[in-house]
Amino acid sequence: MPATEPRTGAGCLMRAEIAEQPEVWRRILDQGLPSVRTAAAAIADHAPRFVLLAARGTSDHAALYGKYLVEVGHQLPAGLVSPSTMTLYGARPDLRDVLIVAISQSGASPDLVHSVRVAKAQGALTVALTNAPDSPLAAEAELHVDVLAGPERSVAATKSYTAQLLVLHLLLSRAEDVDLDQLHRLPAGAEQVLAQDEVIADVAQRYRFAQRLVTTGRGYSYPTAREAALKLMETSYLSAQAFSGADLLHGPLAMIDPQVPVLTVVPEGIAGEAMTPVLPRLRVLGADVFCVGSAAAVASATRGLVLPSGVPGELSPLLEILPFQQLALHTAMARGGNPDAPRGLSKVTETM
Amino acid sequence: MPATEPRTGAGCLMRAEIAEQPEVWRRILDQGLPSVRTAAAAIADHAPRFVLLAARGTSDHAALYGKYLVEVGHQLPAGLVSPSTMTLYGARPDLRDVLIVAISQSGASPDLVHSVRVAKAQGALTVALTNAPDSPLAAEAELHVDVLAGPERSVAATKSYTAQLLVLHLLLSRAEDVDLDQLHRLPAGAEQVLAQDEVIADVAQRYRFAQRLVTTGRGYSYPTAREAALKLMETSYLSAQAFSGADLLHGPLAMIDPQVPVLTVVPEGIAGEAMTPVLPRLRVLGADVFCVGSAAAVASATRGLVLPSGVPGELSPLLEILPFQQLALHTAMARGGNPDAPRGLSKVTETM
Repeated sequence: MPATEPRTGAGCLMRAEIAEQPEVWRRILDQGLPSVRTAAAAIADHAPRFVLLAARGTSDHAALYGKYLVEVGHQLPAGLVSPSTMTLYGARPDLRDVLIVAISQSGASPDLVHSVRVAKAQGALTVALTNAPDSPLAAEAELHVDVLAGPERSVAATKSYTAQLLVLHLLLSRAEDVDLDQLHRLPAGAEQVLAQDEVIADVAQRYRFAQRLVTTGRGYSYPTAREAALKLMETSYLSAQAFSGADLLHGPLAMIDPQVPVLTVVPEGIAGEAMTPVLPRLRVLGADVFCVGSAAAVASATRGLVLPSGVPGELSPLLEILPFQQLALHTAMARGGNPDAPRGLSKVTETM
Repeated sequence: MPATEPRTGAGCLMRAEIAEQPEVWRRILDQGLPSVRTAAAAIADHAPRFVLLAARGTSDHAALYGKYLVEVGHQLPAGLVSPSTMTLYGARPDLRDVLIVAISQSGASPDLVHSVRVAKAQGALTVALTNAPDSPLAAEAELHVDVLAGPERSVAATKSYTAQLLVLHLLLSRAEDVDLDQLHRLPAGAEQVLAQDEVIADVAQRYRFAQRLVTTGRGYSYPTAREAALKLMETSYLSAQAFSGADLLHGPLAMIDPQVPVLTVVPEGIAGEAMTPVLPRLRVLGADVFCVGSAAAVASATRGLVLPSGVPGELSPLLEILPFQQLALHTAMARGGNPDAPRGLSKVTETM
């Protein structure tokens, strides 16, 4: 029950950082554009034929969002880096005409620093997006864009994720696809979504005893499904699996039954319409469906939360993830956990 | 108990198709090389700067294996296609100098056929790998390689997966990395692994009541972890989540406890060594670890199955997946399911 929850103690960091997001977005729009524009101009000069994105964990879901932006907006092929090919197997690929975008909240992951170093030596233009301008990754990349989320202290990343999405939108969209008026309306949309915290707290009670659940979305909203699953796993210790709506039909649908809640992302527009073949299949299986999306989609689900109308599909992911961040927080608290410091994790993960 | 299991009825198709794999590999090596060489020569002529792989479901894990082959062997950047960018969002990327490899057992998935059609129109060289030479996908691509697995009737794909891996190895490795003597020894290695079916049947009894589990591997063995998880999900209706060993440490580790078995792939060589930071973390959490891999790795696990020694890392995935296919079969049977026809699934899945 939000009104009576403590301002210190378990979950207070994650709660505060979720709430900060509208302010972070305003900061990016007010102060971040010059650095984005410098990087965008360098990218345009480099004229990449191909874009690679490199990241781990939450940032990897931002990278997946960036991949859609590049493929749909710039009509360029794009891929996600498997860092192990460069770190473990010593690959030295030909990266002329290639843009590498490395994304990391802390900028401290050694495998990303190594991948950027190799990519630069192999002829790529390298850009780092971090929340830490003094980090090794920011230093290693030729260009750095600060996502301006401010210090993030909860182990479960929230505000840095949506800050990454917004900066990627500004950096990787074609200039004609960036509508600043639309962007300036987004923080108010976020406030409207975040104000429904009590709805989500109630949903968390419903999933209090769930051991496993599935998340699903398509297109621009598939990264939301991925990030929602990770957030629930790392805070609430349940198995949460994300599938694109299409992949779900290729096998994993078999594991859905009334004991496995399905969290769907069904916004207005193309990504939501593409879920049309999936939702009736879930109903037939008797699945308990929680939906974040359009009013029509929410009306056909077991529970749901309606997003503001009129937000373009490529910006919708910024709003979509907010209720899932709240759900991860409330589910963890309901289960007696501390989402600020999940067992077994630390804020900076060092892997090669 | 293998000796008493029926030759008809639930699981008989999947059981027979698992057992056929050494024969399928011999067939590929005996009859498949001319068609692979024709395609390989066309690829060399095209001299791609970049390789995209397109697939869904099980074939997507073969695609991920192919991505490692391209990045490590040919030192070219590679990516996995998000089909929705071309099907839903109408992207028409610049694909000159690009090779597209589309992989599908049935060759009937409309989104792959559409992606190949678009890619061809956009200047890519298109190659299809299917188990169905008369399929729409085989017709649409400029080049087709039959994976020669023979008709696959179990909904859970097994022999078509390892056939895809072997054909991808032959097609996408550099000529100097293909050791035909080594390859001709693989089917005997597979027979040695498959002969340990009773060990796996016993492990399946151990996981009879597990609701969720995690699979993990790195590098060339990460696709094995992904495919093992899918096989268990689609046949046994449990939640099985795959993570690269590195990604596991970035969050999902929090959900591991003694109630969540962890299935690890730890072969000899680089992929196995890269799991070194992961295994002690699992031990600290009290995880029940099943390991497929080297004798040393298996010795430190709760249970395990030792793979034949001396198999190069890029061929190890063909052997690694076999015990997991058997585990999926036995777990499904132990739970009273029918892995040949899982609830909610059909053999050909049509998505756009």
